[in-house]
Amino acid sequence: MSNIEMAGQKKLVLITGRAYPELAEQVAAELGAELVPTDSRTFANGELYARFDESVRGSDAFVIQSHTNPINEWLMEQLIMVDALKRASAKRITVVAPFYPYSRQDKKGRGREPISARLVADLFKAAGAHRIMSVDLHASQIQGFFDGPVDHLFAMPVLLEHFRKTIDRDDLTVVSPDMGRVRVADIWSDKLGAPLAIIHKRRDPMVANQVSVHEIVGQVKDRWCVVVDDMIDTGGTIAKAAEALKAAGARGVTIACTHPIFSGQATTHLSQDFIDQVVVTDTLPVPEEKRFEKLTVLPIAPLLAKAIHEVFEDGSVTSMFEGAA
Amino acid sequence: MSNIEMAGQKKLVLITGRAYPELAEQVAAELGAELVPTDSRTFANGELYARFDESVRGSDAFVIQSHTNPINEWLMEQLIMVDALKRASAKRITVVAPFYPYSRQDKKGRGREPISARLVADLFKAAGAHRIMSVDLHASQIQGFFDGPVDHLFAMPVLLEHFRKTIDRDDLTVVSPDMGRVRVADIWSDKLGAPLAIIHKRRDPMVANQVSVHEIVGQVKDRWCVVVDDMIDTGGTIAKAAEALKAAGARGVTIACTHPIFSGQATTHLSQDFIDQVVVTDTLPVPEEKRFEKLTVLPIAPLLAKAIHEVFEDGSVTSMFEGAA
Amino acid sequence: MSNIEMAGQKKLVLITGRAYPELAEQVAAELGAELVPTDSRTFANGELYARFDESVRGSDAFVIQSHTNPINEWLMEQLIMVDALKRASAKRITVVAPFYPYSRQDKKGRGREPISARLVADLFKAAGAHRIMSVDLHASQIQGFFDGPVDHLFAMPVLLEHFRKTIDRDDLTVVSPDMGRVRVADIWSDKLGAPLAIIHKRRDPMVANQVSVHEIVGQVKDRWCVVVDDMIDTGGTIAKAAEALKAAGARGVTIACTHPIFSGQATTHLSQDFIDQVVVTDTLPVPEEKRFEKLTVLPIAPLLAKAIHEVFEDGSVTSMFEGAA
Amino acid sequence: MSNIEMAGQKKLVLITGRAYPELAEQVAAELGAELVPTDSRTFANGELYARFDESVRGSDAFVIQSHTNPINEWLMEQLIMVDALKRASAKRITVVAPFYPYSRQDKKGRGREPISARLVADLFKAAGAHRIMSVDLHASQIQGFFDGPVDHLFAMPVLLEHFRKTIDRDDLTVVSPDMGRVRVADIWSDKLGAPLAIIHKRRDPMVANQVSVHEIVGQVKDRWCVVVDDMIDTGGTIAKAAEALKAAGARGVTIACTHPIFSGQATTHLSQDFIDQVVVTDTLPVPEEKRFEKLTVLPIAPLLAKAIHEVFEDGSVTSMFEGAA
Amino acid sequence: MSNIEMAGQKKLVLITGRAYPELAEQVAAELGAELVPTDSRTFANGELYARFDESVRGSDAFVIQSHTNPINEWLMEQLIMVDALKRASAKRITVVAPFYPYSRQDKKGRGREPISARLVADLFKAAGAHRIMSVDLHASQIQGFFDGPVDHLFAMPVLLEHFRKTIDRDDLTVVSPDMGRVRVADIWSDKLGAPLAIIHKRRDPMVANQVSVHEIVGQVKDRWCVVVDDMIDTGGTIAKAAEALKAAGARGVTIACTHPIFSGQATTHLSQDFIDQVVVTDTLPVPEEKRFEKLTVLPIAPLLAKAIHEVFEDGSVTSMFEGAA
Amino acid sequence: MSNIEMAGQKKLVLITGRAYPELAEQVAAELGAELVPTDSRTFANGELYARFDESVRGSDAFVIQSHTNPINEWLMEQLIMVDALKRASAKRITVVAPFYPYSRQDKKGRGREPISARLVADLFKAAGAHRIMSVDLHASQIQGFFDGPVDHLFAMPVLLEHFRKTIDRDDLTVVSPDMGRVRVADIWSDKLGAPLAIIHKRRDPMVANQVSVHEIVGQVKDRWCVVVDDMIDTGGTIAKAAEALKAAGARGVTIACTHPIFSGQATTHLSQDFIDQVVVTDTLPVPEEKRFEKLTVLPIAPLLAKAIHEVFEDGSVTSMFEGAA
Repeated sequence: MSNIEMAGQKKLVLITGRAYPELAEQVAAELGAELVPTDSRTFANGELYARFDESVRGSDAFVIQSHTNPINEWLMEQLIMVDALKRASAKRITVVAPFYPYSRQDKKGRGREPISARLVADLFKAAGAHRIMSVDLHASQIQGFFDGPVDHLFAMPVLLEHFRKTIDRDDLTVVSPDMGRVRVADIWSDKLGAPLAIIHKRRDPMVANQVSVHEIVGQVKDRWCVVVDDMIDTGGTIAKAAEALKAAGARGVTIACTHPIFSGQATTHLSQDFIDQVVVTDTLPVPEEKRFEKLTVLPIAPLLAKAIHEVFEDGSVTSMFEGAA
Repeated sequence: MSNIEMAGQKKLVLITGRAYPELAEQVAAELGAELVPTDSRTFANGELYARFDESVRGSDAFVIQSHTNPINEWLMEQLIMVDALKRASAKRITVVAPFYPYSRQDKKGRGREPISARLVADLFKAAGAHRIMSVDLHASQIQGFFDGPVDHLFAMPVLLEHFRKTIDRDDLTVVSPDMGRVRVADIWSDKLGAPLAIIHKRRDPMVANQVSVHEIVGQVKDRWCVVVDDMIDTGGTIAKAAEALKAAGARGVTIACTHPIFSGQATTHLSQDFIDQVVVTDTLPVPEEKRFEKLTVLPIAPLLAKAIHEVFEDGSVTSMFEGAA
Repeated sequence: MSNIEMAGQKKLVLITGRAYPELAEQVAAELGAELVPTDSRTFANGELYARFDESVRGSDAFVIQSHTNPINEWLMEQLIMVDALKRASAKRITVVAPFYPYSRQDKKGRGREPISARLVADLFKAAGAHRIMSVDLHASQIQGFFDGPVDHLFAMPVLLEHFRKTIDRDDLTVVSPDMGRVRVADIWSDKLGAPLAIIHKRRDPMVANQVSVHEIVGQVKDRWCVVVDDMIDTGGTIAKAAEALKAAGARGVTIACTHPIFSGQATTHLSQDFIDQVVVTDTLPVPEEKRFEKLTVLPIAPLLAKAIHEVFEDGSVTSMFEGAA
Repeated sequence: MSNIEMAGQKKLVLITGRAYPELAEQVAAELGAELVPTDSRTFANGELYARFDESVRGSDAFVIQSHTNPINEWLMEQLIMVDALKRASAKRITVVAPFYPYSRQDKKGRGREPISARLVADLFKAAGAHRIMSVDLHASQIQGFFDGPVDHLFAMPVLLEHFRKTIDRDDLTVVSPDMGRVRVADIWSDKLGAPLAIIHKRRDPMVANQVSVHEIVGQVKDRWCVVVDDMIDTGGTIAKAAEALKAAGARGVTIACTHPIFSGQATTHLSQDFIDQVVVTDTLPVPEEKRFEKLTVLPIAPLLAKAIHEVFEDGSVTSMFEGAA
Repeated sequence: MSNIEMAGQKKLVLITGRAYPELAEQVAAELGAELVPTDSRTFANGELYARFDESVRGSDAFVIQSHTNPINEWLMEQLIMVDALKRASAKRITVVAPFYPYSRQDKKGRGREPISARLVADLFKAAGAHRIMSVDLHASQIQGFFDGPVDHLFAMPVLLEHFRKTIDRDDLTVVSPDMGRVRVADIWSDKLGAPLAIIHKRRDPMVANQVSVHEIVGQVKDRWCVVVDDMIDTGGTIAKAAEALKAAGARGVTIACTHPIFSGQATTHLSQDFIDQVVVTDTLPVPEEKRFEKLTVLPIAPLLAKAIHEVFEDGSVTSMFEGAA
Repeated sequence: MSNIEMAGQKKLVLITGRAYPELAEQVAAELGAELVPTDSRTFANGELYARFDESVRGSDAFVIQSHTNPINEWLMEQLIMVDALKRASAKRITVVAPFYPYSRQDKKGRGREPISARLVADLFKAAGAHRIMSVDLHASQIQGFFDGPVDHLFAMPVLLEHFRKTIDRDDLTVVSPDMGRVRVADIWSDKLGAPLAIIHKRRDPMVANQVSVHEIVGQVKDRWCVVVDDMIDTGGTIAKAAEALKAAGARGVTIACTHPIFSGQATTHLSQDFIDQVVVTDTLPVPEEKRFEKLTVLPIAPLLAKAIHEVFEDGSVTSMFEGAA
C-alpha cells in the first residue's frame, strides 16, 4: 500500500466583518469559541481589505456580517472575506447574513428592474460561498435564489419567549400590518392563543392617488395589539398602523419585529405616544443614539450559535423550529 | 482583406410540444408563420423523442408547451426539444411555458423540501434555454429563479377586455379569494373602477384543526362578485369562496382565472349553483369533457403571439402592459 | 487557538423513489440499513413532491430509482429528491439508476435530433447530483456524458453465477443477437468456456426496405444457445432471433438479459415456444402480470448494495469486476 | 430616442494552426476567402504562441487544425488560438478538427482510466469554443461529449464518388474489418449495391491469450473486396485483414478509410502484396515519405468548405448528407 | 418554409451610474448618442435601485461607472445595472470601468489574503457582464482575471498629445517613480525622444524599518522631469519623489498620471512648491474642492467614445494604440 | 435511526507524470509514502494514456508533473491524469506544477494575443483540479488566474540555505538582472544583509532598435555578485548581465535561479568564463548532458514534500515562509 492515512478532523472557524462585531463575539461566546483574529482595513480611496491571522485551511468557516448601512460596504467586505477563505483552502464557507441584503428587491415589479436579491445570491456564489444562513427572509422564495443550501432561521421563538414571559396573554390580539404578513401573524396567533386582526391599506376613493385608509379587520377595541412584522425601516408605515389601532380603541400597541433597520426618522416615528412598546432582535446593530425608552432589543446570537452548532455537527436546523414555521 | 462578409439575418421559428398543439398553431396563425414540422414520438417504454424536419440553424426559436397533466411528460418533452435545438445550432432558445410547471413549490415551507420551481428553471437552463416566457407566475419571485431573461406576461388585459364587453360594471365587486391574491385583486378593482372585497379563511376557534370560516371583508351584499385567482386546480377552495359570497347576499358570482388546471372534480365543483360564471384563458387545454355550460374560455394565443413578436423584433414587452402590472 | 475541532464522521443514507421501492428495501437490508422515511406524493395535476422525515445533513446520500414506465415521472421524482437533498445540506449525492433512462438516445443518428442520454446526465448535474451509479449502460460512452464519477456496474457476474449453477455447460453456445453486442457476448463466451455465434440481421436483397434475414454465424445446431443482451423492450427482435436459432437446429434457447423493460407485447413474445428460458435481473420491476412461466428474475440488490458499500467506504468498485469487463 | 442603430453584418474568418496549413488554404480557396495572417511560434522551451495580424472582432471564426503527431502540440496550439479569439472579441468560435483527437479513448474500458475524448471536449469548451466540426468520429457518442453543437461530417460521399468513378462495381464486396464497423459498412453496401462481408477476429481456442483467427462472414471468393474503416493507425490490423481476405480467395483488396494516421510501420504494412489499393482522405497530412504507390489521397477540403459555408450562412449541414448517414 | 425572417439590426445603448454622470454624458456627446434615461435611487437603508425608462432589448449596452469613493457603492450600482440589463434581454453587456476597482489587490502578497481584483472580475461575470473596458490597468495581468474580452485602453496618447503641445521637449527627462513603472516610462521616453531616469526607493541601512532613501538613476540635473504613474492616491509617495528630483537639481517637475484618486491629503501634497505641474485624465471625477492651480485635467471621454465606437462597429481597438503599448 | 455511520478517514495519494518521475519519488520518500503505480503510455500517434493500478477513491490526490520540454506533452499528460482521478472518485485533486507552464504569457502585450497562463489555469479546472501548487510564479498575479486555492511556494529558503553554508557573506552584492526582479532581489538583499545592485537594460540611443546597454546601478566593483532570477531559459540574457558585471569590476558572479529551463545553447552560455557559479533547484529536470562544472542543483523535493504535508494535514503553508515573501 502506497498511501498515508489519518483520521478526518473537522474544524469550526468563526469570522466577523466590521459592521457589528459584537454580534459575532456573542455567537462565539455562546459556542465557547473565539473569532479568528482578522486584519480588516479601509484604504484611503474606500477599498477594503481583510486578512486572517491564523490558518483556516480545511476549516468549516462561518463569515458573520450584519448588513446595516452602509450596506454595500459591508456586503463587499463579506464577499472579500469569502474570496480570501476560498483562496486559503477553507473546506466549506457559510455566509451568515442575519438580515439578507436587498431582500425587498426580490422580483421585477416592472420591466427593466433588477432582481437584486437574486444578484446578491449570485455574488455570494461567485465569491465562493457554499451556504447561506439568514433570519426571517422577507420572502421565503429568496431561498430559491441561491444554488445551494440556505439555512432559514426564524426569530419567532426568540420573540415569543419574551412575550410569554412579559405579557399577560388574556386580552392580546395579533395584528398583521398588511396583507403580506398575514401568514406569519397567523402562526403568532396560534402560538399565543390570541385572535388575529389585519390592517388593510386601501385607496380612499375620495382622494386620488393616495393610500390613506387603514381598514382594520377583526376586533381590536379594548385589546392589547401585538403588531408583527419582519423589518422596520423608517418606521413610518408601522407607526400609522399603530395610530389606526389606537384610534380604533386598542388598549395598547406592541410592535414585534425581527430586523431593526431604523433608517432616517425611525426613532422619532416609533417614539410616538400611540406606540407602547417596540420589541426587536439585534440582527442589525441598534446603536445607542437609535435606542429609545420603549425599545427592547433581544439578542439573536443564541439562535445563530445554535444553528451554527447544528450545521457544524451535522445535526438538524429544521428541528430547532419544529412546529414554528 | 481576408474575410467574407454578409448582412445579418434573423429567423423566427416556432416549435410545439404535443401537450396542446392547437395553442401553438393559433400563435403561429397570429404571427403569420407556420410551426416547424416535428417528428415527436413516445417509445414503448415511455421515452420521448423529437426531431425537427427543417433546419433551425441560426434561428430565434420559441418552444411552446402547455404543462397540463401528465405534466412531467410534457416538461421532459420540452427539455428534449431544447436539447435538440441547442445541438442543431439554434441561436437563441426561448421556452414558452404559459403555465409555469411546479410554480406552487416555490419555497421550502419546511426543512428538507425541494424548491421544485427553481429546479425547473435549472433544468431549462441545463438543457440549453436562454430565455423563458410565461403567463401570471404564481409568485413573481420565480422570475429570479432563472439566470436569464424571463418575459412575464399578464393575462389581465385579456380577461378585463372580456369583462368590459360583457358585464355591466355598475354593481361589480372584485373579490380576492385569499390574502395571497389581494395585490392582483387590487389592480382589477382599479381597472374596473369597482370596490374590493377579501375573503379571509380562518380557523374556527370552536373546531380544532379546521379551516372552516370564510370571513368576508368588504361589501358584497346585492353586488355581482368577480373572484379573481391565478389558477383553479380542483376548484374546491374557490367553490367554497363562491358559496360564502352567495350566503353573504351576493347577487352573482363570476370567477376569473388565468390557468384552468381543472384537476379531479373541478368540473363538478365549478358547476354548482352558487357559481354563475367561470372565465378562464387557455394557457392549459380545456378538453371537451371538462367544459361546462357556465364556462367561457378566452384564447391566450394573441397575447403570446404579440409578446413573441416583440421579443423577436427587439421591441418592448413591458410596454404591452404599461399600467397593468 | 480559536477553533472548535471534532472528529469527522461519515453517514450513509439511502433514499428511494416510488417506482420500485422493493429494490431499495432489499439494498438497505443487504447493507443492514434502513431507508430514510420519505413523504412522496403526486398532486392532483400530476406535480410530484418529496420530503425527508429525518435529517440528511452532511450525509453520503444514495437516491435509488428504477426507471420503468412512466419513465419521465420517475426521472422527475429523482431530480426533485436530489434538489431536496442538495438544499438539505447532504454532503454527497449519488444517483442510483440501475437502468439508465434514455440510454438508447446516445447520439444524433440524424441531424436535429436530441442526445437525450446526455441531457439526462445534464439534468442530474443541474439538480445537484455528484455521482451516478448504473448497471450495464447501453453504450459505455454514456459514462463520458456526466461530468463526474460514474460507477458502471456489470450484471454479468449475477447472471453467470446463475448459469454456472443451473446449466450444463457442455453444449452451450453464446449468441450475440446483433453486431452491437458481440463484445459482451465475447466475454460471456470466455467466462463460460463456450463457443460464440452471432446473428447478423441483413436486408433481404429480394425484398425492398425490409430487415428480414437473420444470418447466423457460428455453430448452433444441436447446441443450447444463450442469447445475451442488455435489455429487452418489446421483445420482438429477440424473439425473432430465438426463432431463427431454433430453425437453425438449436437444441434450446435461453435468453439472458440485464434490463427487463418488457413493454407492450413483451410477455407474449417471450412466451413463444421457441424460447425455452428467459433470465433477467430486476434493475426494473417485473410486476406479476408480466411474469410468465419460463422467466427467472435474479435480484440485482446484492450487487448494488456491494457497490454502495465500496463507494461509501472508499473501497474499490473496479475490483468487484476484476476480469469481468 | 437615445440609441445608435446600424444593420447587422456577419464576417467569416478562417484561421489555421501549423499542423497542416495546406488543408486550411484549400478550404479558404474553395470558399474564395483568405486565411487570417497569424504569427505562430514555438519558443525555446516548447511553449507555443499565436497572434492574429488582423481584427477578428465580432467575427464568425473557424480554427482549423489537423491533429497529426505531435498531437498534443497541435491540440494545445488550437486551444491557444481559441483563447486568443475569445479575448479578441470573436463572436462565435468553431473548432474544426477533421480528425478528433483522442477519439479512441471514448469510455472507461477499465476502472481508473480517463475518458480523454470527453476531456478534449471540455478543454475546447474551457478555452472558449462554441462549436466543433469534425469528420467521421470514431464513435458517434462523442457528439454528446460537447455541451454545444457538433457538426459531424461524413467522408463517405467523398470516398464513394471516387469508387463510382474508378471501380467496376459488378464484383464488389464491402468488408467490415471488425464488428465495430458493421454499421458503416452496411451503408456502403447499400450505396454501392454490393454485398457485405464481415471479419470476425476471435481467440483461437487452441492458443491462449491470442487474437489470431480472422473468421470471414460472407462471400469474398473471386470478388473485389473494399475494406472500409474510419482510421488507419499503424496499419497492422487492416493488413492482417487483407491477408485473410486474399487467403480466402478475394480477387483484390481495396482499403477505404477516412483518417490516414499512418504511424510507425504503416507504410510498410500497407505496401504489402495482398493489398491492391488504399484510398484515404487528407483529414490528416500524408507527407511525401509516407506516400506509396498504391495510395490515393482524396482532398477533404471541399467537404469542410461546404460545411463551413452552410454553418456561416445558417444553411443546413444535415442536408449535405441526406440519406448518407 | 415556415419561418419569419428579417434583417438583423444592432443598437448601441449607453447607461451611466451616478458616480460621475458627466463623463458618460461626454462620451454620449462624442458618439452623437444620448444616455438611456434611468431611474437610479438610494433607499433609506443604503440599498440601491436602478431601472431603465426605455427598452434595451437586443441592445449592445455599455454601462459606464467611475469607481471613485464611496467605491463599493458605485461598484454595487454597476452590478445592479448589469443584472437589470441581463433580465431586460440586452444582447451584450460591456462594463466600462475607466479606473478598475481594487486593481492594486491583484495578488496574494501574503497567505490568507483575498485577490480582490479577481473577485471584482468574478462579480461582473456573475451579474451578467460579457465584456470589460478599462483604462491603464495597474497590472496588465488583470486582463486575465476576466473570462472574456477585456478592452484595455491606454491614456498615454491623451497625455502625450498634451505634452507635445505644451512642453518644450529639448530638456525633458522621463522619470519612473519606482521599479514597477519602468516599462511604461520606457515607452514615454521613446515617444518623447527623452532620456529616462528611475527613482529607486531603498531602505536606509542606518535607520531600521524605513524606506527613506530615494536614489535617482539617470541624469536629472538641470532638466525638466516628467514623472509618469498610473494613479495618484494620497499623493504622498509621488510628492517625495518630486522633492528628491528637485533636490538633485531638476529644473522642473511635471507629474503625469492617468487616475486621479486624490484621497485624503492629496491636494495638499501635490500643491507643494517642488511640484510644478500635475496632469491627469478624468477617469475619476476631480471635484472643485480637489482642484488646485497647478492641476490640468484632460478629458478621457473622447478615448472611451472612440473605443466604444470600434467595439460596437466590430472595428479594431488595437489599432487605436498601434505602437503605443 | 436509519443510517450507517463510520469515522472519516483521509488518504494521501501521490501520482507522477513521466516528465521527471525522480522528483516525485523524492517527494514520496520525504513523506514516507509511495507513488501510486501507474500505467502511463504514449500510443503510436502520440496520444497519451494513464491508468492507476490502485484505488484512489476518496483520496486527497497530488499529481506531480515537471513541465520541461516537450511541455505540451507533459501538460496534456497531467490533464489526462486529473480527468482519470476525477472519474475514479478522488475527493480532492491538487495539481503540483513546480514550474508553472506558460507563465510568461500572463497578459496581452498586444491586441489579439492569448493569455496562455490563464488558459492553463482554465484547462486544469476543466479537467477537474481543485487546487494548484507551484513554485516561484513568474508573476504573482497568476494565482488570480485560478478559481480556487493556489499554494505558491518560494524556493528562496532552499537557495538561501545553500548560500549561507557556502558563501562568505562579507563582500556580497545581490543583483537584479532587470527591473522586473527588483522586488525579489530586495528580499534577498535583506536576508543576506548584502547591498543591492540593479542592471538596467536600455536602448543605446546611438543604435536603432537595439537593447545593448546594461547600465549597472549600485556598487559591484570588487564585490561578489549574486544575480537572482526566477528562471533561466536560453541563458543569453543572464550571461550578458554577468559579462557586464565582470566588466564593471565584479570579483565574481554567482547566478541563483529557481527554474533551470536550460533551452538551446543554455549550457554554452552559462559555461562562459565570466560566470563563476550557477545555483538552481530542480523544479525542472537537469539531465546529464545539460550539467556543467560550475552548476549546483539543489533538490526542491523537500520543499514540495513539506507543503504537501501541510496541505494534507490542514496545517499552514504560509507559516513555512513567514517573513520570506
